[in-house]
Amino acid sequence: MRLKALAIDIDGTITDMDRRLCLEAAAKLRSLKIPVVIATGNTLCYSKAAARLVGVCCNIIAENGGVLVNGFDKKPFVSDVMYECEEAYTFLSSRFEIEKLDPFHRITEIVLRNNFDIEKARELLSVHYPGVEIIDTHFAIHIKSKKINKGTGLTKMAEMMGLEPSDFVAIGDSVNDLEMLQEAGFAVAVGNADAYLKDIADYVSTSKYGDGTVEAIDFLLSGGLIKVPFDKDEQ
Amino acid sequence: MRLKALAIDIDGTITDMDRRLCLEAAAKLRSLKIPVVIATGNTLCYSKAAARLVGVCCNIIAENGGVLVNGFDKKPFVSDVMYECEEAYTFLSSRFEIEKLDPFHRITEIVLRNNFDIEKARELLSVHYPGVEIIDTHFAIHIKSKKINKGTGLTKMAEMMGLEPSDFVAIGDSVNDLEMLQEAGFAVAVGNADAYLKDIADYVSTSKYGDGTVEAIDFLLSGGLIKVPFDKDEQ
Repeated sequence: MRLKALAIDIDGTITDMDRRLCLEAAAKLRSLKIPVVIATGNTLCYSKAAARLVGVCCNIIAENGGVLVNGFDKKPFVSDVMYECEEAYTFLSSRFEIEKLDPFHRITEIVLRNNFDIEKARELLSVHYPGVEIIDTHFAIHIKSKKINKGTGLTKMAEMMGLEPSDFVAIGDSVNDLEMLQEAGFAVAVGNADAYLKDIADYVSTSKYGDGTVEAIDFLLSGGLIKVPFDKDEQ
Repeated sequence: MRLKALAIDIDGTITDMDRRLCLEAAAKLRSLKIPVVIATGNTLCYSKAAARLVGVCCNIIAENGGVLVNGFDKKPFVSDVMYECEEAYTFLSSRFEIEKLDPFHRITEIVLRNNFDIEKARELLSVHYPGVEIIDTHFAIHIKSKKINKGTGLTKMAEMMGLEPSDFVAIGDSVNDLEMLQEAGFAVAVGNADAYLKDIADYVSTSKYGDGTVEAIDFLLSGGLIKVPFDKDEQ
């Protein structure tokens, strides 16, 4: 197996818990000879900035699969699922004191401040809005449609790039990475990942956060699973 | 003189010409014990991502001084100047084939693709819309109000932080950094900066781009102009 592309989460996977970029992980991603796809729960605007600054511009899966783009100035592919989230938000607003974060830039899901009874809200949604779910990525609380996730995003992005999802190695740390890791040809969970992510991963790094990503990429390079920079095959 | 804060441009000052973050500059900024203010022509959304990832969150001068924020979830201070830019844009649209970039996230100025006769457009604006100017930062073409710039932004940000503009060292590379460097207590132009910026700078680095920023900060630290990490004064 030789993997042809890499899809990677941002927060907790190439950043620390304060969302600061792991500089060694950025250097490692930048050195790769295969396309790197940023796959994140962040907005497209935030994701584009991250892709630019890391230097892996510009195949992006944003908003947990709701928004995709494969070029900085290209028109994004946007899933039509916001109406479901808005209905669920209106419903929850009548029962909890909830607060939207970053409402102007987010177009397919809603992110909330983590200051309400999420389990109770989940129970209510499962009865009244079964098509919508609440996920906690440790960085934000998302109200999202069950129709989309980073796995559906990866499938669509692979198609846009002329690849199969199985051509990808995917690296993540949290609940919103689960489906992406399941769809990918090779799944990596970094050391700080949730247990159920480690359970389904092909490789679990000993190191945490960005250091875990560096460790995993070194494993993939040394095992010939992804093309090394200046690969002899090209000569 | 001991400088109490640092204001710094992003593109061309802590990035390379492809807008990739200089990892050494990020590490250097992250290590400082004084507040670091991101001062950029980018949108607030892009700037917040940069501040988060660099790890200097969250005093931000965005859109060349039009948008300011001093906390990630705080309401931004927004200058009421977009109407002037829109009028000038409408006027220019009737004379040139021009194309807005990133129109959804930008709220106090307009950015255009660099594919029209800028000198001719400048001449026309100087006659018909003298309150508005066109600047070329080498990364984008901005239509902006002459009322705001990174210098007015720095003055306002200093006030928000309980400081004077003269308490700042400012680092930049381009025309839109000029007023900020003039307002600051100490002005740095990186090696790739435009000549007129170098002319008014207190320090011009030999190195270019992010390496120039690292060189300048090392100069300031070694000269005692900014507090070194783990400063003896604190013990």
